[in-house]
Amino acid sequence: MGSNALINKHIDLKNKKILIYTGNSFGLNARRIMPSRPKTADGILRYAKYNIVGLVDSTCSEKNVSQVLPDLNPPNSPCDLKQAGKKIPIFKTIKDAKEKTSANVLIIGIAPKGGKMPKNFIDDLVWALENNFDLVSGMHTPLSLYPKIFKAAKQNSRKIWETRISPTELPIASCQAYKIKKPIVLTIGTDAAVGKLTTTYKLAKMANKKYNTCIIPTGQTSIMIEGWGISVDKCEGDFMAGAVEKMILEKEKEENPDIYFIEGQGSLSHPAFSTTAIALIHGACPTHLVLVHRPLRKRITGCLLLPVPDIKKVIELAEKTVIPSFLNTKVVAISLNTSGMTDQEAKKIIDEIKNKTGLPTTDQIRFPKDWTNLFMGTLEHANIRT
Amino acid sequence: MGSNALINKHIDLKNKKILIYTGNSFGLNARRIMPSRPKTADGILRYAKYNIVGLVDSTCSEKNVSQVLPDLNPPNSPCDLKQAGKKIPIFKTIKDAKEKTSANVLIIGIAPKGGKMPKNFIDDLVWALENNFDLVSGMHTPLSLYPKIFKAAKQNSRKIWETRISPTELPIASCQAYKIKKPIVLTIGTDAAVGKLTTTYKLAKMANKKYNTCIIPTGQTSIMIEGWGISVDKCEGDFMAGAVEKMILEKEKEENPDIYFIEGQGSLSHPAFSTTAIALIHGACPTHLVLVHRPLRKRITGCLLLPVPDIKKVIELAEKTVIPSFLNTKVVAISLNTSGMTDQEAKKIIDEIKNKTGLPTTDQIRFPKDWTNLFMGTLEHANIRT
Repeated sequence: MGSNALINKHIDLKNKKILIYTGNSFGLNARRIMPSRPKTADGILRYAKYNIVGLVDSTCSEKNVSQVLPDLNPPNSPCDLKQAGKKIPIFKTIKDAKEKTSANVLIIGIAPKGGKMPKNFIDDLVWALENNFDLVSGMHTPLSLYPKIFKAAKQNSRKIWETRISPTELPIASCQAYKIKKPIVLTIGTDAAVGKLTTTYKLAKMANKKYNTCIIPTGQTSIMIEGWGISVDKCEGDFMAGAVEKMILEKEKEENPDIYFIEGQGSLSHPAFSTTAIALIHGACPTHLVLVHRPLRKRITGCLLLPVPDIKKVIELAEKTVIPSFLNTKVVAISLNTSGMTDQEAKKIIDEIKNKTGLPTTDQIRFPKDWTNLFMGTLEHANIRT
Repeated sequence: MGSNALINKHIDLKNKKILIYTGNSFGLNARRIMPSRPKTADGILRYAKYNIVGLVDSTCSEKNVSQVLPDLNPPNSPCDLKQAGKKIPIFKTIKDAKEKTSANVLIIGIAPKGGKMPKNFIDDLVWALENNFDLVSGMHTPLSLYPKIFKAAKQNSRKIWETRISPTELPIASCQAYKIKKPIVLTIGTDAAVGKLTTTYKLAKMANKKYNTCIIPTGQTSIMIEGWGISVDKCEGDFMAGAVEKMILEKEKEENPDIYFIEGQGSLSHPAFSTTAIALIHGACPTHLVLVHRPLRKRITGCLLLPVPDIKKVIELAEKTVIPSFLNTKVVAISLNTSGMTDQEAKKIIDEIKNKTGLPTTDQIRFPKDWTNLFMGTLEHANIRT
């Protein structure tokens, strides 16, 4: 759209003072009502490496970030991890935050259902644009389609980066990533929204102790964490796999890492999001698949007609979906999301799935040590195509 | 884009006098050089049911259409089939055609590589817009992005229907088509561009002798043939399967046919077009799959790195990809495209594949009688989910 062409600009997040804006979704009470609403903020706080100077939320401004989100654990952070969260204050208003931190980039940190921004955000965002902030958004509806926001950005020459808008000039995939003779690890899921992003970052963090790793961001939250990337589910069908391939080939040229971690999307078993899942498998040409599964999830997200399929069938389908010439690609480990279970229940289901599949299985959040041992072993002994 | 929003309008092709424009691609010599260039015109001439009054091509204007395209064979045509082609004259210029036929809709009938319209078409299209024609295009680049064409359409209040532009307001899929207790037949391929459209129309034509059939058009050629539909490969990833589902649900409500034929797209084994293939499987919830295979094709179209996979592996993958609760969906027949082979070679490969797969197999163009017997038997004895 004409308006986007003018103001949809990438914003380099390095050397900026970043503010995360969650309206009224970050506080504990808000989490109880809408647990997945602040997930973009949570992801950024956990994994981003840029300079976050504050968070704006009207429901918890007396606290610091780590008091609300206690498992803050960014990988490769130069400072003490918990400490980082303690240092990030929460402000009641953008104005207050601006005065105390001189922040100059504002990231919208909520993931509302349907991707629609609450209308009561508009005035705050206009204020931010009028006060020297550039904006980063992962909303489904581009911010620039709100006339007030568009006008404020134009009049104040501010940038808006719509992370969910994909580039229009993309190649179609041709399996060139197959030629990269390094581990390319892709997370897949038995359903959408089971914990593929978390697993990807946990894996990368672990591998990062020994190797130069590269994360390929394929959705709006990881794009905001990494500061670059393509939202694959927003590409036109023919170019989805090409978008993934292009990202890997570019990083190979620019950074030459030892190992790639591709953030998985959707699920081959989800009627709406199977397109993104197959695009990642075919665009990334993975050497390793890591399956993420949430045992308490019984029906497919947003499609209650369908049960979550048996884990062995999911593995079989994924391994067959890999482009036929590369059929040596296997699911090498299972990352269980046992949230909502007791430790005892979690241990039981881990053992069950381990026995059923014969694969290294654990919950990497609940039992991080097991996970490190299991996965790193698997990775180092796996055959990389030559 | 702003410009499209103004002039991308659906054109109802009923009660119109239609002209097909192929520039210089329809003649036999042009076919020898670029065999797939006039494939949109060919598809429309073979299968469309609206009133085609002429074709414009500078290379063969002394002939009628059936002299150039001898296998003209539109299904359900009320008149003698070959006769229809004989009655469609070929003109050297749009002006000439206009004077002799009073045509008022012009369809661009070529499918150039990359979907880019030859630049020398522009002046002719501008002339058409200035002389009372509405335009139908399946080009990748919307016609309205050419300033001359845009201006001519605006100044003369003419419509341009860009069949490759997909609607922006689409639902995500939730397998509602599963609730339709009728045969839903989807064509799939061992590669892209093997003959899925042809097979779909041949199947529908056959079934049409006994049943009310409905074709679901999923690509620009079938959209032009049927006069409606959604180009699934141009939808944003999350909405591709939803587009297919929406089309079926609407037809069920409006027309309540006995049997659906879904035009297949892409291939689960094609790195770039697997997204469209999986979207059709998940959006259509097919009860029957018909596999189209071209034995002479050895490498994947546009991706020579990859061999066309073994036909049994393709069948296995497709049957597993069907949403797990519907795993009774099977490949019920194989439609071979044996073009380029002798009759003897064709018979040999048909027998080979029949023995290998245990499935009814033939080339529906070369041996149409076999095909009718084989497929109709299969269809009538298959279990429809209840």
